[in-house]
Amino acid sequence: MQKDLKQKLIDIVGEQNFTAKIIDMVSYSYDASEHSHRPDAAVWPTDTDQIQKIVQLANREGFALIPRGAGTGLAGMVVPQKGGLVLDLCRMNRILEINIQDRVAVVEPGVVYEDLNRALAEYDFFFPPDPASGKACTLGGNLATNAGGVKGAKYGVTTDYVLGLELVLGDGRLMKTGTRTMKTSSGYDLTSLFVGSEGTLGIATRITLKINPRPPATATCLAVFDELKSAGQAVAGIMESGIIPSVLEILGKETLIAINQNTDLNLPVVDAMLLVETDGWTQTEADFQMSKIMDVFEENQAGEVTRAQSVEQAEGLWKARKSAYAVLARIRPNFVLEDITVPISQMASMLEGVNQIAQKNQVEIATFGHAGDGNLHPQILWDNSDPDESKRVEKAVDDLFNLAIELGGTLTGEHGIGLSKAPYMSLEHDPVALESMRSIKRIFDPSNVLNPGKMALDD
Amino acid sequence: MQKDLKQKLIDIVGEQNFTAKIIDMVSYSYDASEHSHRPDAAVWPTDTDQIQKIVQLANREGFALIPRGAGTGLAGMVVPQKGGLVLDLCRMNRILEINIQDRVAVVEPGVVYEDLNRALAEYDFFFPPDPASGKACTLGGNLATNAGGVKGAKYGVTTDYVLGLELVLGDGRLMKTGTRTMKTSSGYDLTSLFVGSEGTLGIATRITLKINPRPPATATCLAVFDELKSAGQAVAGIMESGIIPSVLEILGKETLIAINQNTDLNLPVVDAMLLVETDGWTQTEADFQMSKIMDVFEENQAGEVTRAQSVEQAEGLWKARKSAYAVLARIRPNFVLEDITVPISQMASMLEGVNQIAQKNQVEIATFGHAGDGNLHPQILWDNSDPDESKRVEKAVDDLFNLAIELGGTLTGEHGIGLSKAPYMSLEHDPVALESMRSIKRIFDPSNVLNPGKMALDD
Repeated sequence: MQKDLKQKLIDIVGEQNFTAKIIDMVSYSYDASEHSHRPDAAVWPTDTDQIQKIVQLANREGFALIPRGAGTGLAGMVVPQKGGLVLDLCRMNRILEINIQDRVAVVEPGVVYEDLNRALAEYDFFFPPDPASGKACTLGGNLATNAGGVKGAKYGVTTDYVLGLELVLGDGRLMKTGTRTMKTSSGYDLTSLFVGSEGTLGIATRITLKINPRPPATATCLAVFDELKSAGQAVAGIMESGIIPSVLEILGKETLIAINQNTDLNLPVVDAMLLVETDGWTQTEADFQMSKIMDVFEENQAGEVTRAQSVEQAEGLWKARKSAYAVLARIRPNFVLEDITVPISQMASMLEGVNQIAQKNQVEIATFGHAGDGNLHPQILWDNSDPDESKRVEKAVDDLFNLAIELGGTLTGEHGIGLSKAPYMSLEHDPVALESMRSIKRIFDPSNVLNPGKMALDD
Repeated sequence: MQKDLKQKLIDIVGEQNFTAKIIDMVSYSYDASEHSHRPDAAVWPTDTDQIQKIVQLANREGFALIPRGAGTGLAGMVVPQKGGLVLDLCRMNRILEINIQDRVAVVEPGVVYEDLNRALAEYDFFFPPDPASGKACTLGGNLATNAGGVKGAKYGVTTDYVLGLELVLGDGRLMKTGTRTMKTSSGYDLTSLFVGSEGTLGIATRITLKINPRPPATATCLAVFDELKSAGQAVAGIMESGIIPSVLEILGKETLIAINQNTDLNLPVVDAMLLVETDGWTQTEADFQMSKIMDVFEENQAGEVTRAQSVEQAEGLWKARKSAYAVLARIRPNFVLEDITVPISQMASMLEGVNQIAQKNQVEIATFGHAGDGNLHPQILWDNSDPDESKRVEKAVDDLFNLAIELGGTLTGEHGIGLSKAPYMSLEHDPVALESMRSIKRIFDPSNVLNPGKMALDD
């Protein structure tokens, strides 16, 4: 980075909030995907004014800006593909307000997901999206990807909870969107446009979130299936029963084997396992819903069905699901975690399709995911020093996306497009929709300084 | 309308789907607001192809298009302020698909709200927004205004349920947005941008909606308050209790008097009445929530609290709330129904403010509304043949909007901006947000043929 540019940045954020050290540049070259590219420098802005000045500078000098949260993303969203300056927002991490009467929390983008939930727990409230990386990921990152998690089926995803934003736009202007009321019909919904926009339109400096009371009663149950198809049909059957479980997770055979090899959980090795939770204000309510779901399990040839008899037992059942990602990541040198989402009625076909794709391409795919909202995470395991295997993995990913779209699905349920899925945008979106996205990008970031190269917006 | 243009329209939709008769033009000059202006002609298109041809013709010939549902809107949204052609979508009224496993319904824009819910009731499912005009209003209209209703506090509004759209854009291009999956993080959220856009960006020809199972158990209760402030505090107290009622409605004193004068309900004449419903899968759940709410009522000096002991009794309690709008509309020659929405903690201040504004301006305002999401409907009653009273009403409306915004609220919770609130857009929205809305309008409707004059987009 040129010396005068470096000095200009230091003038804005202060010496202690600027870095161009190699070790930092290496750290900032990654997120949790297989992509990497080093930035030229990084800053830790501490307020909106600094961000605005940096964006204005980037527009004048023509360098790329990559807004970054905790870097837990799985699609290369914060990888500085074209170099430039990383804006690490982790020092803007204040919870500005919690107002229970209004059902509202106002936060800066760098607040860690679980920190907010810890603060809300005092009031028996929570912010529901519940991404798996909740201990580390930031709310700004949740906003950027429209993050979801295990509570999606009943409680929705990030966009369902974002009421209003303060933003620095790509052209350096400040903008406020939305409201702090529970609803509004006033003007175009600019707020939702920024949710899931992956830092390509603006940088949120203040986020107003709707929050929910947390139902105190839960029931937890685990069911095993000898056939993948039966598990998929059970998921569809639960929807038909009219019960929306607060959690409905699936673990495939390869995942179960991997967990057994790496933990002492000693799970039954079956084609699929479903982990389900219901909730309510009374135990009667949670239990009633669970009884309806257990009827569906019986109708769909479930094998063993284990009902948790205590909170401790429920936590035991949860351990299996929670270990899946990390256990699988350790098996082979490389992995890629996909995020395809299909209509619930297509779950059985998608699950079978994943296995066929693995066989056909001779690659190792272990599947788990949020069955309740049709969101599957096939985790492909390989060694990228083997060019032949890498090629087969590439083909398998291609097959997965094609099948998901064929079944009426979407490329990504909660991880975003980033770099990983950018080449597939036209598979899912019609040309007019893609062109409209690019036109919208030009309104807010005419010089394309914000996170260039992502989401196929530059093509 | 010129003869050759008339012929071109007839060539597209057929003789039987075109009108320029005075009686029709008078009908189409109104919605349910105080605004009116006649169009030049109207058509009843029956498919997407016809709509596309009409929009292309409008772009070539330069006439205004006003998409219209049932005309039940309260903000002048479908009033042809600049003349032009009304596109009445009532003949595109097919429910194309109901898929319970996928939690999805696909409809044409002219389907009446209650027709969809009747079809869904067979499966014990429903589409929750529940606008008061549900018997007549169309789903295309719900989409255009981001309609809400009595279930808003717990179940949200239209935008929470729109998954995907097929649209004819203002420039005549076709576009598909969104997906039929329960969630997606794929690209910018174009779908939400069109919800609440009041027919100014495109015409939805196919709408994919998320649907919900309907909880079978409810509990209903009515509480009276001698002081407005206590009622407002009770509403805030319910939020703090962690219970989100499925319905939480408020009726002010003037409304209660009017209902008593026009029905045999014989309600107690108090400062405020709250009508509340809780729901669940078990009666225990609904009752438990109601008991917590009744505790809050007691803590906030409620007078009489009536718990419905049967479905019939609950329906009796509902009669009062449901009669409010119609009863009030009959009292004076004219009325305007406002739709301000404030943060829940500001409900007490807003309710008191409405009364002060009525007194100060010497106008009659009766208030009711959806207290659970902070949405109040002050209904102002007057005689527009009295110029002095009309002026005072205008001033009162101005005061109402200013107070709502001062309290952190929004101009409209569920009715939209239309013509009525267009002059107030800059009171709520920052100049950059307004300019962004206009830029977005230019992307999709560069010649401004779609519903011109609405939402302050032309300014």
